[in-house]
Amino acid sequence: MKKIAIDAMGGEKAPEAIVSAVVKFAKEAPNDQFVLFGQEKLIRKYLPKGQIAQIEIINTTEVIEDEDEPVRAIRRKKDASMVVAANYVKAGKADALFSMSNTGALLACGIFIIGRLHGIARPALMPTLPTKDRNKGFNLIDVGANAQTKPEYFLRWAQMADVYAKKVRGLTTPRLALLNNGAEADKGDPVHQAAFDLLKNSSVNFIGNIEGNELLSGKADIVLADGFSGNIALKTIEGTAEVILTLLKAALLESGFKSKIGALLAKPALQDLKNQFDTAQYGGAVLLGVKAPVVKTHGRSDERPIYYTLRQIDKMLVQDVIGDFSRQFSTLTN
Amino acid sequence: MKKIAIDAMGGEKAPEAIVSAVVKFAKEAPNDQFVLFGQEKLIRKYLPKGQIAQIEIINTTEVIEDEDEPVRAIRRKKDASMVVAANYVKAGKADALFSMSNTGALLACGIFIIGRLHGIARPALMPTLPTKDRNKGFNLIDVGANAQTKPEYFLRWAQMADVYAKKVRGLTTPRLALLNNGAEADKGDPVHQAAFDLLKNSSVNFIGNIEGNELLSGKADIVLADGFSGNIALKTIEGTAEVILTLLKAALLESGFKSKIGALLAKPALQDLKNQFDTAQYGGAVLLGVKAPVVKTHGRSDERPIYYTLRQIDKMLVQDVIGDFSRQFSTLTN
Repeated sequence: MKKIAIDAMGGEKAPEAIVSAVVKFAKEAPNDQFVLFGQEKLIRKYLPKGQIAQIEIINTTEVIEDEDEPVRAIRRKKDASMVVAANYVKAGKADALFSMSNTGALLACGIFIIGRLHGIARPALMPTLPTKDRNKGFNLIDVGANAQTKPEYFLRWAQMADVYAKKVRGLTTPRLALLNNGAEADKGDPVHQAAFDLLKNSSVNFIGNIEGNELLSGKADIVLADGFSGNIALKTIEGTAEVILTLLKAALLESGFKSKIGALLAKPALQDLKNQFDTAQYGGAVLLGVKAPVVKTHGRSDERPIYYTLRQIDKMLVQDVIGDFSRQFSTLTN
Repeated sequence: MKKIAIDAMGGEKAPEAIVSAVVKFAKEAPNDQFVLFGQEKLIRKYLPKGQIAQIEIINTTEVIEDEDEPVRAIRRKKDASMVVAANYVKAGKADALFSMSNTGALLACGIFIIGRLHGIARPALMPTLPTKDRNKGFNLIDVGANAQTKPEYFLRWAQMADVYAKKVRGLTTPRLALLNNGAEADKGDPVHQAAFDLLKNSSVNFIGNIEGNELLSGKADIVLADGFSGNIALKTIEGTAEVILTLLKAALLESGFKSKIGALLAKPALQDLKNQFDTAQYGGAVLLGVKAPVVKTHGRSDERPIYYTLRQIDKMLVQDVIGDFSRQFSTLTN
């Protein structure tokens, strides 16, 4: 039996969207247990009458807000839903942590409360992003857990992402690439040059450097990035996609009656495009390198992405991804 | 009288597109002179019969290829069109350098042949990119001239970009922002934190940090980036836009007859969108910090972007942008 600790108070649609996703997923996963942390009264409002045996509620009185300074918040708000849930995982009473709240605070909960795995100096945040080949996607690691990166971090992230891509995404030989400012081996600063050499001489299937314009090409299944430029790449993809789709909508509507018909007729195609860039199916961003799956979904998510994230967490638990990491890194000296 | 040195052999459509853009612009700028460097015979083929008095040709026998290692290439290929053109500018026989060839080699020509301005330790490459507000655009500096960046570089780039935005783009009070992994002043690594403080205490209109998702928002007129993540941001914008527009086209065509009509009707709107993301009107990317305007356009450019780049160079010369830099930095000690 697996137990997932859920911060029910994070995100714009909390707790309603979270509760309904849990209720939906619980039916499909009869062996899983779900512990919801948050205002019990509020949570109960959205639970179906005959309470589901797999769902438990633990009442908490505080909430971590998006504006909160992460480390300070998890220290001071001892009864915050996210913090109590993290302590529950730390105590071994649950196997994984899910939250839609403040990303920095969730990273801090993972690193400082649940704790780093032996051999991992720096855990990293890894979402799955879309590629132009339908339903393929790629993992980008790190997208911001670390503002500064050392060459050896890239190697550990590569090894963990490789296990994830095999066990959770079902890829046989994931192709790993390093996000850099050019294709040649000597590109980038000394940190990226050294990371290139480490990856080249490692056991992962390293295919070399990748540039920003190739991220969505599907050329790599896993892209390794220093946390600073990984964060910028992730947000630049999101921002560019959003601006283009918004402008497209406006252009279709503004160009008069003729194109209004065009827009109406082209609607299914546009929906198709939107679906392709819908990352909900991939689940949330995983903090790799801590002692349990810690997963975050966008704060604006509704039921659907949350449901897929619960599936993703369940798969990480069933496939014992963390156990695999532990075995792989147990002999390391740091 | 201003004289522009033009590498006529760079880019996919050289020299035809280059010659025809020069011929077109020469008519609008009767006080400008243009020196075309390259295979004279080939260039003459595309020049109109009655040769234009403003256009001169200097025959060269070598060409720098995209695959060439930049610094080695400019040292060994002494008779390459780009190198001879750069030496012409260095000798004071022309006022600016234009090329569509190997970016690294052009940067090397600017920095090592034409030379850095007093007070500028590290010149930087600055394109103008589109924003969602039609025809506005923003400057991104640096996009890859430097793989490693020190805090003081940001300040010089800010000062030069500020002059450029005022004199060439006609902005009264350009808003400058720092590309970072979060909005707060303490975000990023120590280099970005120190850059934030330097900018905050400088005379430019610094509006704080900007994140990747806001680049195209029009929130900032100038975005300062370290050369590494600036390069990744630029290419990620290009790659994301390209993938979305390609998928959109495919989605419109593939969704059957009904949507084929839709696509046909929606065509003007799509063209409109494409125009908005067409950066040709802004001209090329400028290498700021060297003793003359050195400007590069995309290797796949046809006549139109080249024409706009010539206009941009002319404006930089007329507005004496370099003279402004020199005066501003003349009292600096390094």
